[in-house]
Amino acid sequence: MSQTQIYWYQNQFLPKDEVRISPEDRGYYFGDGAYEVIRVYHGKLFEADAHYDRLVRTAEAIHMTLPLSKQELLDGLNELVKRNQVQEGTVYLQYTRGIAPRAHSFPQGAEPVLMAYAGDLKRPLAAMENGIRTVTMDDIRWLRCDLKTLNLLANTMAKQHALSQGADDVILHRQGTVTECSASNAAIVKNGRIITHPANHLILHGITRMVMLRLAERLGIPAEERPFTLDELQAADEVFITGTTVEVTPVVSVDGLPVSGGQPGPVTRRLQEAFSEAIRS
Amino acid sequence: MSQTQIYWYQNQFLPKDEVRISPEDRGYYFGDGAYEVIRVYHGKLFEADAHYDRLVRTAEAIHMTLPLSKQELLDGLNELVKRNQVQEGTVYLQYTRGIAPRAHSFPQGAEPVLMAYAGDLKRPLAAMENGIRTVTMDDIRWLRCDLKTLNLLANTMAKQHALSQGADDVILHRQGTVTECSASNAAIVKNGRIITHPANHLILHGITRMVMLRLAERLGIPAEERPFTLDELQAADEVFITGTTVEVTPVVSVDGLPVSGGQPGPVTRRLQEAFSEAIRS
Repeated sequence: MSQTQIYWYQNQFLPKDEVRISPEDRGYYFGDGAYEVIRVYHGKLFEADAHYDRLVRTAEAIHMTLPLSKQELLDGLNELVKRNQVQEGTVYLQYTRGIAPRAHSFPQGAEPVLMAYAGDLKRPLAAMENGIRTVTMDDIRWLRCDLKTLNLLANTMAKQHALSQGADDVILHRQGTVTECSASNAAIVKNGRIITHPANHLILHGITRMVMLRLAERLGIPAEERPFTLDELQAADEVFITGTTVEVTPVVSVDGLPVSGGQPGPVTRRLQEAFSEAIRS
Repeated sequence: MSQTQIYWYQNQFLPKDEVRISPEDRGYYFGDGAYEVIRVYHGKLFEADAHYDRLVRTAEAIHMTLPLSKQELLDGLNELVKRNQVQEGTVYLQYTRGIAPRAHSFPQGAEPVLMAYAGDLKRPLAAMENGIRTVTMDDIRWLRCDLKTLNLLANTMAKQHALSQGADDVILHRQGTVTECSASNAAIVKNGRIITHPANHLILHGITRMVMLRLAERLGIPAEERPFTLDELQAADEVFITGTTVEVTPVVSVDGLPVSGGQPGPVTRRLQEAFSEAIRS
């Protein structure tokens, strides 16, 4: 990455220090916006179409119109990657509803505010190899977790709770039904079958989750999209998470108890290999 | 109010145009902060102690430390009111967790960012006199609605839904149990008794709600803090809402049907008079 990080802000490429957000940006006082985090491998956006589609879906659900076409958006993000010389990293992109005096009702005629940046981020090889420790926690988030919005306080509190317990992440549940993690999807393997929460309003529809299910199908590993319980989690043969930055990462403990014998399991390993292959090709 | 609005930002008084928020402010990308809106009557902060206590309570619950003492905070807000020459209006105040590269975990050593402004706002005399129309809507918010945080997307969507239905506000409910409105608390009157949702995790603990209950006690009007249903709402003798900007405002219709005979009721009127008296004194 170049020494001075370049942002893409309101269709201009600017050094980070020159990006100044208005105190009347609705993103600042309401979290009123949508975002995406896109992986960059070999200097290229990974699954860009899927991320774009999800961004549009979130924007529509919160009644926001994106001011750029798909081509304009992807061109801008690719230029951002190039200007920051990112080979392996991420692009972060957010849109807010615009700048207006604070009022709950949507402002008339406000222009959405786009901000994006790119940065280096290595693949999490150690966590992928050794697995992570998790703790379970009540999922207290709102009932549109499928929307990728800037209202992320509950997610940050969940992540911080995990760290305070000496764990790497949380596994969230609603009355004993597992939903997902603080910023990734959760899955278990039982008797050779992958089980993961359905893509409804209670979880984010992860791009990596989708890729994982596609790879599982190609590998002939059966997969069920259905809710599973904390009991099934503890009794699983394998547990893993999927996400843009974590890829396919094994979970080796839940609430201090080993899962999968405290070791990444064979199905997880096959998915990891297939995912690495998908990145290469 | 003076022509150029003055903000209080990071302990400096600045014209609005000079306030520039960092793109790495956690308030901007996570909504990671707490806020208050305080009424100004006759150039003075109304119920400032109660607002301060609630701000501290929210901050503690989200594990944030306020960097200013109560006296420093109130001195700053009073100065802000003075510099903006506000006689009848509001002060808006928010704290975010600080400026740091985006990561869900809380940043080490980041300083909270304080922003406040003051502006004119007249008492809503027409709505107080004539009442407002409401529509009911599912409450899909998270399960810590008692915290006054910057994660307000659901509230803004609710308000906008009301406007799109030709109404003034929503009355939210969870599976038929009324919680509150998009930015105010709801109450009904039945057989001379005020009924309003208990101050638990499902509603904001409104300062005006608290003042209203105190005034009711003083007036000898019995009040119950208990959940009530949509059926009770429709069958109520009176319905009203309370909030910092709406004060005590009657509701005259719910989902297109008149409540309280389509007219503000006598208990609501007594509370309004007592509230106006409280402001004067």
